[in-house]
Amino acid sequence: MTTAPPTAPLGPDSDLSEVFELAQQLRVDSVRASTSAGSGHPTSSLSAADLMAVLMTRHLRYDWAAPDNRAGDHLIFSKGHASPLLYAMFKAAGAIDDDELMTTYRRSGHRLQGHPTPVLPWVDLATGSLGQGIAYGVGIALAGRDLERLPYRVWVLCGDSEMAEGSVWEALDKAGQHRLANFVALVDVNRLGQSGPTELEWDTAAYARRVEAFGCRALVVDGHDLAQIDRALTVAADGTGPTVIVARTVKGRGVSEVADKDGWHGKPLPEDMAGRAVAELGGVRRLAVRGPVPPAAGDTGARPGDGTAGPVELPRYEVGDEVATRVAFGAALTALGARPEVVALDAEVGNSTHSEDFRKAHPERFFQTYIAEQQMVAEAVGMAVRGFRPYATTFAAFLTRAHDFIRMAAVSQVTLSLCGTHAGVEIGADGPSQMGVEDLAMMRAVLGSTVLYPSDATSAAALTAAMADLDGISYLRTTRGAYPVLYASGETFPVGGSKTPRRSEDDAVTLVGAGVTLHECLAAAEELAADGVRARVVDLYSVKPVDTDTLVRAARETGALVVVEDHHPEGGIGEAVLSALAPGGHRPAFAHLAVTGLPGSGTTEELLDEAGISRTHIARAARELLDR
Amino acid sequence: MTTAPPTAPLGPDSDLSEVFELAQQLRVDSVRASTSAGSGHPTSSLSAADLMAVLMTRHLRYDWAAPDNRAGDHLIFSKGHASPLLYAMFKAAGAIDDDELMTTYRRSGHRLQGHPTPVLPWVDLATGSLGQGIAYGVGIALAGRDLERLPYRVWVLCGDSEMAEGSVWEALDKAGQHRLANFVALVDVNRLGQSGPTELEWDTAAYARRVEAFGCRALVVDGHDLAQIDRALTVAADGTGPTVIVARTVKGRGVSEVADKDGWHGKPLPEDMAGRAVAELGGVRRLAVRGPVPPAAGDTGARPGDGTAGPVELPRYEVGDEVATRVAFGAALTALGARPEVVALDAEVGNSTHSEDFRKAHPERFFQTYIAEQQMVAEAVGMAVRGFRPYATTFAAFLTRAHDFIRMAAVSQVTLSLCGTHAGVEIGADGPSQMGVEDLAMMRAVLGSTVLYPSDATSAAALTAAMADLDGISYLRTTRGAYPVLYASGETFPVGGSKTPRRSEDDAVTLVGAGVTLHECLAAAEELAADGVRARVVDLYSVKPVDTDTLVRAARETGALVVVEDHHPEGGIGEAVLSALAPGGHRPAFAHLAVTGLPGSGTTEELLDEAGISRTHIARAARELLDR
Repeated sequence: MTTAPPTAPLGPDSDLSEVFELAQQLRVDSVRASTSAGSGHPTSSLSAADLMAVLMTRHLRYDWAAPDNRAGDHLIFSKGHASPLLYAMFKAAGAIDDDELMTTYRRSGHRLQGHPTPVLPWVDLATGSLGQGIAYGVGIALAGRDLERLPYRVWVLCGDSEMAEGSVWEALDKAGQHRLANFVALVDVNRLGQSGPTELEWDTAAYARRVEAFGCRALVVDGHDLAQIDRALTVAADGTGPTVIVARTVKGRGVSEVADKDGWHGKPLPEDMAGRAVAELGGVRRLAVRGPVPPAAGDTGARPGDGTAGPVELPRYEVGDEVATRVAFGAALTALGARPEVVALDAEVGNSTHSEDFRKAHPERFFQTYIAEQQMVAEAVGMAVRGFRPYATTFAAFLTRAHDFIRMAAVSQVTLSLCGTHAGVEIGADGPSQMGVEDLAMMRAVLGSTVLYPSDATSAAALTAAMADLDGISYLRTTRGAYPVLYASGETFPVGGSKTPRRSEDDAVTLVGAGVTLHECLAAAEELAADGVRARVVDLYSVKPVDTDTLVRAARETGALVVVEDHHPEGGIGEAVLSALAPGGHRPAFAHLAVTGLPGSGTTEELLDEAGISRTHIARAARELLDR
Repeated sequence: MTTAPPTAPLGPDSDLSEVFELAQQLRVDSVRASTSAGSGHPTSSLSAADLMAVLMTRHLRYDWAAPDNRAGDHLIFSKGHASPLLYAMFKAAGAIDDDELMTTYRRSGHRLQGHPTPVLPWVDLATGSLGQGIAYGVGIALAGRDLERLPYRVWVLCGDSEMAEGSVWEALDKAGQHRLANFVALVDVNRLGQSGPTELEWDTAAYARRVEAFGCRALVVDGHDLAQIDRALTVAADGTGPTVIVARTVKGRGVSEVADKDGWHGKPLPEDMAGRAVAELGGVRRLAVRGPVPPAAGDTGARPGDGTAGPVELPRYEVGDEVATRVAFGAALTALGARPEVVALDAEVGNSTHSEDFRKAHPERFFQTYIAEQQMVAEAVGMAVRGFRPYATTFAAFLTRAHDFIRMAAVSQVTLSLCGTHAGVEIGADGPSQMGVEDLAMMRAVLGSTVLYPSDATSAAALTAAMADLDGISYLRTTRGAYPVLYASGETFPVGGSKTPRRSEDDAVTLVGAGVTLHECLAAAEELAADGVRARVVDLYSVKPVDTDTLVRAARETGALVVVEDHHPEGGIGEAVLSALAPGGHRPAFAHLAVTGLPGSGTTEELLDEAGISRTHIARAARELLDR
């Protein structure tokens, strides 16, 4: 193993023979790191090393010592499994040292994880679920150009396999539509996927046709010809529009034992092979890189929300008036627009979800993704990376479309708000395809999430506002129909709390609901009262975290709980209540009413009744518990 | 309102002036039905009426009186909100009468729901979540050509808004890749979406470029010129390849008060407007249609599985050998291939999930969708519609990508099997992006689902086989690592059951696990035994339905339960156990160990321990319960 002497840092003025040495160093370090870890994806790193060597020396304007510089470019490894390459770049940039690379990669308790996550200061967001990086990149590029007016560019390194994900095309469509000249994707077309050749193999012309058809510029290059790469990166940054560099590469490039060979995806080279590979690549080098720095003008970029926010005047409602929670959400979101960091995203249902109200007041901070829920959430993540507070809204049912993006947003530990409207069978005639009856299970299971489900306009407005100050992923579930306002304006709704709109000292049963079922619980309580049965009613507007104290007290004081939800029985309010009660050993008589069959069309009243979650069923369940 | 006299049924020989009359009838009935229901999407129906009139009279080979005829064409309304048009077609075909159309549409307890579902014998599957019809159609077309060798064609009517969904492009890519000459999509480019103009409006050339770039033939037509439509449909069926007809249309066509006007999406015409609309459209007609019939040769098409199946010889394992459940799944799936209705689908991770084993034995029934999980599930749905038993497999984490398709498959009430591998933090060094820790919540909340989670190779093989005889959507969760075989070959694992691999008469606590945590529970029981504490261990391989009897008995007999899962605490095994115990009022001391933080990379042992779900934590939790 030869060791080259240290040299002055490479940079924009280095010639391409020096850049080639850097590429070889990135390869060597990719091999060494993955072999030392005993796992990882060296061959997927080798194919993209030339692309990244040219990018980091000559084009990426980034201050590795000051990753918080708001004018710095963004680099997203959509092919997150090429983490050895990314971490080798970190080393070349002086951000980490060789010891960290060689002794901590993929090890417990360390930051150089198998796929990059933002525990690293040079990583914006987590990747590793393929097909997501371009979508996030579009969000960041939109924020930079349209919201922050900063000169940064966004560079996304993609694999070729992941171009099969529809989310990539949702994203390129938006890059094209918005003419995002600050957006560049590099597709590493190394022909081999995890389990064999990719569908399009080396048909770079086919990729180019698709890219152009979706409104972006395609530049086809030999991904190992540094001059071609350099020219393409220069063209890509010429400010004329979004660009996708389609680079024909060889998986395992530079290591003859694995180059272009199937069966080497995700496999580190054994020690002996690694030794031969490093030798073939010219041995270990000690090159450092000091690439282009961000323009000084940009250093002053203000964080969103640093400016003076106008007062947020939430809408006020009269108790007893009938107002849909989705309407209150739209009004509150519009009011929240007084805070300059708040942005709203829609998947072309804004007139139903009422996110459109925000557009009318703050068109410059409203983003229409059309019917592309994955892209909507990804753009929100990208904007969250830049410090904005996105509210992304569609029907609760259709948020399931973005589940993997929501899951990954939690891994990225970003802060954003989701709103799902048209919850449950309550929606009526449109039928089951439009009914969100799985969303509480999905959103409760998101790491660190907050799940809110208001029953009236006052609480909906208050909780919409509260979300803007929560960390992590918060979710608001709203209802289609209009129901009476229960709470006076000014009432507070702390996250993790609940309301008890009906109680007495001698309640025999507690009815727990949220959203439309809270109104049914109140009606059932009236019905029970007519029979002389006193029922307490709990409004569980905070589903996660849940108000354990109030539930425990209700269990202890009334001894019987009926929990009612317009959702499937699994993973929703009923199980949240059981989980809250279980550790303390509280054991009320318990009935759980939820949607267990396939609904059809009908009126709200009919569908609630057919699902067994109407006032009649609630009152009956309460009586049955008391008769035991 | 004029009423035309009844005429002989229209058919392939009718001239286009007669077809125009049919189109007008479809429009009139779309308006009448939605106005009578007080909701629905007449304008979205009016734009596509000409396309459907030509299709049903001259091209759709379908016997409306015998929808079970296996050689008949398939018609999928991807724009399910255009149900008034579909139901008007049913009426024209004599499948339903005017009374049903006018008095039951969108009403409770009736089959003409807001969006079509298979409660109707002429509907293959539910639509209404946009961007799905093409994907399903590709699955049906693949089944017809490659598995059934039947001459049917698949026609999919799409809206233009839904072309923004990435799933559409995943699907067209597959149509192109497979050269599916029996597949035709018709895109109704009516320029207006739900909340305003679509992104591409009437840029039919842009749609055509995208379609061609994805490997399908595009035919651009004026969607109101019957001769152009007829020619395009003829060309589309010429057997040369998959075709997308891009039809420029006018939303609300034929009714001047709403034609090409924004703000009329999803709104029925008020009574007075409806009256004027019907008059403008020429009044109510009584035309009937008898279009082309399926070729007689096709009537003999056998159902999958009708033939003689070879014996299914499941793999056998020796107790104590270390075998990963994903490996046993692959082996059992391959053995199940002896049943000719079993097909396997992969999203390019078959070498990790072991679905690839099936490909080696039964290449003709293995379908590679590449990294396109939505398409994988949609193809599975399409094949299930044709009576096959699909097994679609990817990492558990990446099944979240297909959540909306899984949800809709449940609304379609199809039967299919999903397998999610690499569950939990157990996977080790790859990190959180690859860890499925939300899948149990997602899959339990699917309507009518079965959720299975084997802990050893014997049970994994048995449950893989059991899935082939389950109705609805079943899910198998498997683990990356190899663990000891616990059960002898021949042991049975009924769905809804459990195993109790460790028990005694004086157990003080019950440890409940599945998958890797079952092995940790067994180790914890050993540790507790060394302290003189007897622990029962329950293998909860059937998470839904869950073995309530065994859990109740364990709660009663031991008084203390520790439930441990490699999953987030919400919606998984812990809550399944609580839901099972709650109705009976059983109240064991209860501890729930689950993944509550963000994992990183590490070894399995380290990650289980960091997550608090290792043997050490289990034993500690048991002791704490007993010390209370």
